[in-house]
Amino acid sequence: MELYDKIKNLCAGAKAASPVLARASAKQKNAALLKIAELLWAEREVILAANRQDLDRAGENGVPAHMMDRLALNEGRISGICDALRELVGLTDPIGSGECWTRPSGIKIRCVRVPLGVIGIIFEARPNVTVDAAALCLKTGNATVLRGGKEAINTNMALVSLMQKALVEVGLDKNAVSLITDTTHEGANLLMQMTDYVDVLIPRGSARLIRAVKENSKVPVIETGAGNCHLYVDESADLDMAVKIALNAKCQRPAVCNAIETLLVHENVAAQVLPMIAEKMAEFKVEFRCDAATKPYIPGAVDAAESDWGTEYDDYILAVKAVSSLDEAIDHINKYNTGHSEAIITRSYENGRRFQQEIDAAAVYINASTRFTDGGEFGFGAEIGISTQKMHARGPMGLMALTSQKYLIEGDGEIR
Amino acid sequence: MELYDKIKNLCAGAKAASPVLARASAKQKNAALLKIAELLWAEREVILAANRQDLDRAGENGVPAHMMDRLALNEGRISGICDALRELVGLTDPIGSGECWTRPSGIKIRCVRVPLGVIGIIFEARPNVTVDAAALCLKTGNATVLRGGKEAINTNMALVSLMQKALVEVGLDKNAVSLITDTTHEGANLLMQMTDYVDVLIPRGSARLIRAVKENSKVPVIETGAGNCHLYVDESADLDMAVKIALNAKCQRPAVCNAIETLLVHENVAAQVLPMIAEKMAEFKVEFRCDAATKPYIPGAVDAAESDWGTEYDDYILAVKAVSSLDEAIDHINKYNTGHSEAIITRSYENGRRFQQEIDAAAVYINASTRFTDGGEFGFGAEIGISTQKMHARGPMGLMALTSQKYLIEGDGEIR
Repeated sequence: MELYDKIKNLCAGAKAASPVLARASAKQKNAALLKIAELLWAEREVILAANRQDLDRAGENGVPAHMMDRLALNEGRISGICDALRELVGLTDPIGSGECWTRPSGIKIRCVRVPLGVIGIIFEARPNVTVDAAALCLKTGNATVLRGGKEAINTNMALVSLMQKALVEVGLDKNAVSLITDTTHEGANLLMQMTDYVDVLIPRGSARLIRAVKENSKVPVIETGAGNCHLYVDESADLDMAVKIALNAKCQRPAVCNAIETLLVHENVAAQVLPMIAEKMAEFKVEFRCDAATKPYIPGAVDAAESDWGTEYDDYILAVKAVSSLDEAIDHINKYNTGHSEAIITRSYENGRRFQQEIDAAAVYINASTRFTDGGEFGFGAEIGISTQKMHARGPMGLMALTSQKYLIEGDGEIR
Repeated sequence: MELYDKIKNLCAGAKAASPVLARASAKQKNAALLKIAELLWAEREVILAANRQDLDRAGENGVPAHMMDRLALNEGRISGICDALRELVGLTDPIGSGECWTRPSGIKIRCVRVPLGVIGIIFEARPNVTVDAAALCLKTGNATVLRGGKEAINTNMALVSLMQKALVEVGLDKNAVSLITDTTHEGANLLMQMTDYVDVLIPRGSARLIRAVKENSKVPVIETGAGNCHLYVDESADLDMAVKIALNAKCQRPAVCNAIETLLVHENVAAQVLPMIAEKMAEFKVEFRCDAATKPYIPGAVDAAESDWGTEYDDYILAVKAVSSLDEAIDHINKYNTGHSEAIITRSYENGRRFQQEIDAAAVYINASTRFTDGGEFGFGAEIGISTQKMHARGPMGLMALTSQKYLIEGDGEIR
């Protein structure tokens, strides 16, 4: 069969499964989540064997160590995946909830949450995303079409096969979760054209992946993740707090989207705070790329190029720049940021207030680390990604971001 | 100047105006709306003179009567536009409102509504849309780039010039509302590529216009309006109610998107209810396009073609089809509808419930006319259009649909 027909049939199958899934009770969907957790744990040897195949091939192909680490499963990680499924059961299902009111005309209106329908997820070789994304979609009554990175294909096939088995065991359609096994670019591109069957595409992964999906997809896309985040140390900052937060925001987990990439420092405190920050970050061997004004204060710093201001390093690298005012800091951030997370360290009420008002980003912090931009930390209990767009959802996307709405109107013969 | 540069500069001007507008108080935005109403009324002769130019040219070009009617302004219509502006002042401004909570980590989170930024509106030759769309965007702190139909260009230039004068008089940037004066397709197409400056495009008008924008736009689009709406008369229906609602939904205002295009009738009541409906609709000279099963019951009916089931007539034409079950009605509607408004007339609790659950549309009615799908009728006070997509907004879009959100986080040095 042609690849086009194969992917079309798979997406059509997901579409056909979606109305029944949309009407499934929370009880039934939770039973499916628990059954998936049960089967993944019971069949962990099958999953680990498939994962070993992927790891062996990746090793032969010289896949870098950090990607090997993301790809690798072990009993502990499978246990973690199962725990996440059980936690998801405890969250409130938004489907069917909403508001109701009666109009002067007599009609009674309910506005209730409904699933989006079929959600396509394009992601890289991270097997935890496979289960996590499908589970969040299932919890909200959406069918999922997964298309993961080629390095994880055997693992993904094992995981999806077990998820489908669990769906069938609780009386749901196995097509509620499906996997595109073609891992060429063509496979992903075809998924992006399936406007008749797929309601939304969510890319999860690198900035390059997200850009490729956004540029090529005819299916509506929710952009996630790209985070060129800044920390601005104001003239009035508590400098010890600035050091502590800079260290956390850069070094606790540099590869994630809510880590900072650029440190902006008011010129009047640069000489004092930068050596303190450099000293603390020495432990992590952070590379500093500085403008002319800040370079003298950091031993071993290199010159920043224009391109550094727009780069998401995802690594132990920090761009550093002095600014002469809050306005300059705000202008720099609004010029280079990706609309993700930005922070100011300040003791000034007015500067904090202006920073929050004028910075255009999903999350704007005063005196706290950008690392808090996360569905769990925000209290949503789960997260499908972090939206950096303004439409539909912005910031950490919990279950509500996977829903739409529907107006249900009841009358007794009312006309206009 | 090249057209590209002209439109780019105009959009860049709107973008530059948007942060200040985003921070404008409700009081200031309301002052602008009142000033616009004042100036439009004071300068009504200027507007009417421009409108006469447009009407004269349209008359020479043989523009059809119903389009001439949409294009025409008079004192009454200008007064209506001004009344709508004053009503908008009375609505609550959603900007800055939202929820707040504190997390165990100690961070305090506010999730507040913010403007989308710059909204592009592509519409046809309806001068009331010019003011209405700009006013709704202004009320929610969004800058607007308008691109109206060529037949209304003089009227639009007069209206936008007065709106800009009002903005300046209350201390706002005139670029908060601007008009693309090029009315070629090229002008609209360039607007659709301005991803650096325009956050959202909302097409308002015919299905053809909306499809063209959706297919060509790189800027995210909110689809509005196309309505292939159905009324299903169930076997258990109160037939007098069915007649009354069919008449209202088809004939009260056939050119609008929430009017019905197809009538589905359960085969067991077709012989009884169809002659009643045909009799009432005779007054409006409705043309009936029937399947074989229903044609005998309607004098003068013609045969429906397959294409009739997917056509939005926007006219005194009604497609009619018999179905043998609720399932067949639901399947037909889900196959041909545009996700707008659908209604069932029934006395059966179970059939009403299933219809509302299983029909995939923004608004699903039991025993009421589809004509109620409207921001005003739903109680939103104003409406920028009716979304037929599932992302961001679905159904009548009030002020909330013109907003996004932003998380404002306050801490005292919290780190992860």
